[in-house]
Amino acid sequence: MKHLYLLGAAGSIGRQTLDLVSRFPEQFKIIGLSLGSQQQINEEILKTHHAKIVCLRSSENINLYQSLYPDTTFVVGNDGLMAIAAYPDQGVFINALSGSAGLKPTIKAIESKKDILLANKETLVMAGEIVRKKIKEHQVSLYPIDSEHNALWQLIDHEDKNDIEKIIITASGGALRHLTRDQLKHIKKEDALKHPNWSMGAKITIDSATMMNKGLEVIEAHYLFDLPYDKIETLLHEESLIHGMIQLKDGSLKALLGNADMRMPILYALSYPNRAKQSLSPFELTDLHFKKMDFNRYPLLKLAYEVGIKKGLLPTVMNAANEAAVKLFLEDKISFLDIEKIVIEEVNAFQNINNPSLDDIIQCDDMIQKKVFDYKKKR
Amino acid sequence: MKHLYLLGAAGSIGRQTLDLVSRFPEQFKIIGLSLGSQQQINEEILKTHHAKIVCLRSSENINLYQSLYPDTTFVVGNDGLMAIAAYPDQGVFINALSGSAGLKPTIKAIESKKDILLANKETLVMAGEIVRKKIKEHQVSLYPIDSEHNALWQLIDHEDKNDIEKIIITASGGALRHLTRDQLKHIKKEDALKHPNWSMGAKITIDSATMMNKGLEVIEAHYLFDLPYDKIETLLHEESLIHGMIQLKDGSLKALLGNADMRMPILYALSYPNRAKQSLSPFELTDLHFKKMDFNRYPLLKLAYEVGIKKGLLPTVMNAANEAAVKLFLEDKISFLDIEKIVIEEVNAFQNINNPSLDDIIQCDDMIQKKVFDYKKKR
Repeated sequence: MKHLYLLGAAGSIGRQTLDLVSRFPEQFKIIGLSLGSQQQINEEILKTHHAKIVCLRSSENINLYQSLYPDTTFVVGNDGLMAIAAYPDQGVFINALSGSAGLKPTIKAIESKKDILLANKETLVMAGEIVRKKIKEHQVSLYPIDSEHNALWQLIDHEDKNDIEKIIITASGGALRHLTRDQLKHIKKEDALKHPNWSMGAKITIDSATMMNKGLEVIEAHYLFDLPYDKIETLLHEESLIHGMIQLKDGSLKALLGNADMRMPILYALSYPNRAKQSLSPFELTDLHFKKMDFNRYPLLKLAYEVGIKKGLLPTVMNAANEAAVKLFLEDKISFLDIEKIVIEEVNAFQNINNPSLDDIIQCDDMIQKKVFDYKKKR
Repeated sequence: MKHLYLLGAAGSIGRQTLDLVSRFPEQFKIIGLSLGSQQQINEEILKTHHAKIVCLRSSENINLYQSLYPDTTFVVGNDGLMAIAAYPDQGVFINALSGSAGLKPTIKAIESKKDILLANKETLVMAGEIVRKKIKEHQVSLYPIDSEHNALWQLIDHEDKNDIEKIIITASGGALRHLTRDQLKHIKKEDALKHPNWSMGAKITIDSATMMNKGLEVIEAHYLFDLPYDKIETLLHEESLIHGMIQLKDGSLKALLGNADMRMPILYALSYPNRAKQSLSPFELTDLHFKKMDFNRYPLLKLAYEVGIKKGLLPTVMNAANEAAVKLFLEDKISFLDIEKIVIEEVNAFQNINNPSLDDIIQCDDMIQKKVFDYKKKR
C-alpha cells in the first residue's frame, strides 16, 4: 500500500490520479491533498477520499468542511500546501499543481524525505539545479508524470546511459498546428484551447499551441535525465501516439507508444518499480506521422533551448513571462502572437545572473509576472 | 576480441557480417567460414579474411586454394560445415545459411559449446524444442540476427517477462503487397523478387511475398522468447522502419526502429552485451504506417500459427514443402500461387507425430522436399 500526497487534486492530472486510487484501493491511499476553486469538484473529492490533511484555496468553507469531516485536518492557501509537503508521515508526493506555485512545495517535500512524482514542469524549469542538489542531499527519488518524460524514463531506465545518442520528445503541434504564422494574428482563445489530442488544463493547452510547453519540457528533460541540450531533440508527431523516443549510439531507436490517456503515465509512476498488470486504455495501432520541427514556426521552442543553455534566472524569466502572458490571453487582453512577443522581450531585456538562490528564483518569478501584468495595464 | 565462425559467408547476411569484421578489426576476427558457389565472391573473401578453417561447396578448387593459403585447413560440403561447427577453439558461431541445411551444424556447434548467432530461421522452425534442450544442456547462448527478432530481443531483454502482454512482429508485405489474390495468379518470378525495402537472397524474398517468411518468424519467436502463440502478433508496416514491438500489461508499447540495414542487427548481436558506439546507418524518421494483418490474403501466415501450435513434425513439413516449392517457382516450374497450394497440401496430407527426434526431423525434411520435387516432375 503506497501512501500518497496529491497537490492539485481537483485539476486534470489530479482527478485522473484520484480515479486510479479509486480503481486500485488495495494499492494506493490518499493521505493528503489540495483542492481547487470549484466547490462541486472539491466536495466530490472530499466525499470519496478520506485524507488526513486537506488544503483549501481559501478559508471560506473551512468550518462547514471541518464539521463534515472531523477527522481531517484542514489547512489553507500556500501555507497549507507547505504543511502537506512537510506532513510527517512517509509517502509519495505528487505535484500536479499548474504554474510556478509548484516550486516551493516540491522543495519542502524533498526536505521532508518524500519521493516526488512531478507533473509540475515549472519546478525543474525554474530551479532544476537546486532540485537536483536537494534530491541528492535528502536521498529521495524524483520521477516524471507527464506523458513525454514518463515515456523517456521508461526507455532510459533500462539503458546504459553511455549508449544514448539523444532523446526525442514528440509534439502534437497543439491546436493551431495547421495554421501559418500569418494566420495566427487574429486567433481567438477558443481556437487556441481546442487541443486535437489531449484534454488538459487551459494553461498547458495554450502552451501547446505556442510550443512553449515543448520548450519547458526540453528544459525539464535536461534536469530529469542529466543530458546536455544537444542530446534533446523535438519532433512533430500529430497523433500523439509515440510519446518519447531514444536514439542509441549504434543508430537504433526505441520508442514508447500508447494512447493519449494521462492515466497510463500516472499509473506507471505510481506503480514503479512494478508495472500495472492491466491496461485502462488498450492501444490500437493506426497511422503514425512524423515531421521535422520548424523553429521559425515555433520561436518559443527555440527560446527554451537558448535559456536552458544559458541557465541562471533566464528559464524562470521565460516561464514567468509566459505564465502571465497566457493568463492575459485567456482574459482576452492580448493576441495569441503577443504571448510570444512578451516572452521573447522579457528574456531579451533581462540581465541574467548565475547560480541564483531559491529566493532569487521566487523573487524573479514574482517580479516578471507582475511586470507583464502591469505593462499590459498601462497600454 | 571475439572469435567468429561464419556459415554462409558468401550470402547476403554473411557478406554484411564480413563487412563489419573488416570495419572493426580490433573487435572481431574470423576463425572459420563457409563459402558459396560463386568463385569470384569466394576468392574475394579468401583474400580478405585469413580463416583457420574454410568450407568449400565442392572440392573443385581445393588444391588451388590450398596452395594459395597453406595455413588454412580446407574442408568440403556438409561434412565441412560440421567440421567448422566442431572446431575445438572457443568462439561465436554465426549461422547465416539459407534453408534446412542450417539445422545440423547449429546442433553440432551447440554441442561444441559455442554461442550461437542465428540468421537461419529453419533451425528453430524444424527443431525448436531440441535446440532449446541442447542450449540448456551445454549452457550456451543463442541470439537472433534477423532484424525482427533482433529488435524484439533488444526490447524484451530489459523487461520483466511477466509484464509482457504480447510481442508484435512487423511485416512489410513483400514484393506483391499491393496486389489482390486474384492478381497473384500470373505473377512472374521477377515481380516476386522485387522486394520494396530489403535487399536479401532469393528464397527469403519469395517467402516475404507469400508471407511464409513471417510465418517462419512467428514460430522462431515462439522458441526464441518462450512465448505462447497467442502472445505473438503480426502487423503490416510497409516502411520496414519499426522492426519489432512489445506490448506491456499496462497497455504501453515499446518499439525498436531503424533503417532497413541488416548490418545494424548483426552488429548488435556481435557486440552484445555491449552496444556499438557508432552508427553505420543514421536513421531519419519519415512517415510510418500500420495496417491489420489479413490472413485471407496471406494463408501461409495463418498456416504457420497452426503448425506452430500443433508442433511435432508439422513445422518441418511446412518449411520443407515451402523450401522446395520456392525453388520450383524460381526455376519457372510452378506459379506463384502454387507455392501456397503445395505447402498447404503437404501439411494437410501429413500424419503428424509428437516429439520427433533430430533424425526424424531431418528425414522428414528430406522426404517432403523430394516429394514436392518428384510430384512436380510427374506433371
